[in-house]
Amino acid sequence: MNAEARVAELGLEIPGPFRPAGTYVNAVRSGHLLFLAGHVPHRPGGGIVLGRLGADLDIDQGKEAARLAALGVLATLREELGTLDRVARIVNLYGVVNSTPEFAGHTLVINAASDLLVDVFGGAGLHSRLAVGVASLPAGMALEIQVIVEIKD
Amino acid sequence: MNAEARVAELGLEIPGPFRPAGTYVNAVRSGHLLFLAGHVPHRPGGGIVLGRLGADLDIDQGKEAARLAALGVLATLREELGTLDRVARIVNLYGVVNSTPEFAGHTLVINAASDLLVDVFGGAGLHSRLAVGVASLPAGMALEIQVIVEIKD
Amino acid sequence: MNAEARVAELGLEIPGPFRPAGTYVNAVRSGHLLFLAGHVPHRPGGGIVLGRLGADLDIDQGKEAARLAALGVLATLREELGTLDRVARIVNLYGVVNSTPEFAGHTLVINAASDLLVDVFGGAGLHSRLAVGVASLPAGMALEIQVIVEIKD
Repeated sequence: MNAEARVAELGLEIPGPFRPAGTYVNAVRSGHLLFLAGHVPHRPGGGIVLGRLGADLDIDQGKEAARLAALGVLATLREELGTLDRVARIVNLYGVVNSTPEFAGHTLVINAASDLLVDVFGGAGLHSRLAVGVASLPAGMALEIQVIVEIKD
Repeated sequence: MNAEARVAELGLEIPGPFRPAGTYVNAVRSGHLLFLAGHVPHRPGGGIVLGRLGADLDIDQGKEAARLAALGVLATLREELGTLDRVARIVNLYGVVNSTPEFAGHTLVINAASDLLVDVFGGAGLHSRLAVGVASLPAGMALEIQVIVEIKD
Repeated sequence: MNAEARVAELGLEIPGPFRPAGTYVNAVRSGHLLFLAGHVPHRPGGGIVLGRLGADLDIDQGKEAARLAALGVLATLREELGTLDRVARIVNLYGVVNSTPEFAGHTLVINAASDLLVDVFGGAGLHSRLAVGVASLPAGMALEIQVIVEIKD
């Protein structure tokens, strides 16, 4: 099954693409690789999920934030490629979690983004990954997801 | 207008390339992509901008550090390519800011690096980007900028 | 001398490949580039090196952890490519150290990973690099190493 059909089947609501909040763009293509910017957890009703994992947010809230950021990735991919069906492979995902020094649940949080990509793209959604916890993020947001994607001609 | 002419017009002083401070090199080319190392804010008079955003440095000092790191990127690109005019696109910029947990102004700080690249390369300088705040950086420096560049043959 | 011969000469014990601890894979190839996941410091006897540089671990323990993570990278490369001799170049290394805000010795720690790669691959092992210190890592581990590799056909 292709990715767009899968999105419909899962009933996913992919938001419109979000405008970058600085001097950058959401994605740049070079050859068959598309390098996306860090994507942030936009709430469906507006606003961004703010706060620190291990203090302000629990694992479930972190997972929801990761899922929202991954939906933003889908929004950008659809905007850039016209259709998600042009994704050949999610190559790499870098998940950056705003966290206290004691937080250790990054894997569970970032899995929520990875799982969504696998749900949509199947085996082509399975990626290499790095997950870390940082001291701070722009505007105090909860996390960011950055992906590299291989695209079909 | 090409990039070298733009550098002259802007009166930018691009430093000589800096020697890496560890077991690595400033850049490695693979195909049409050039992967640069993290570039640090070298002061024109010598030394590196040290300190933490949100504690030791304010936003303006952070912006100046980001600009200095971006000038170092230009130095490396000129050294690697002979001329900045061989840059086809700044593909991705990763900005890492040494910051307190409360700091939230990463976008303003890293914009100073992004703005310089757009000033020099025009639309080809516009990149995808991730900006984060980390607990610490080598030698206590204020920030690092890492870029991926597409080059012309 | 080729890389596999070098591994034998150095008497390196490359572990079997490690199973990823989340929804991801150890490596994804796109064109001639292989994007590896973050690799963690698995101890030869089992378990992962945990703790924070600057608090729980000293520089020598950090260097040992970086070396163990680099051995994991070799394990993945051998698994993915059949033989280390298919590595054309280590393109980029991203070293992420779990550290206190005061820690400043990232370069020494991550050099231990870079040095191992240069020992094995010679000039082809020399890479661009970024080293940072983060607030936390999954499960409290000491560091992670992520590399991008160019491979031969």
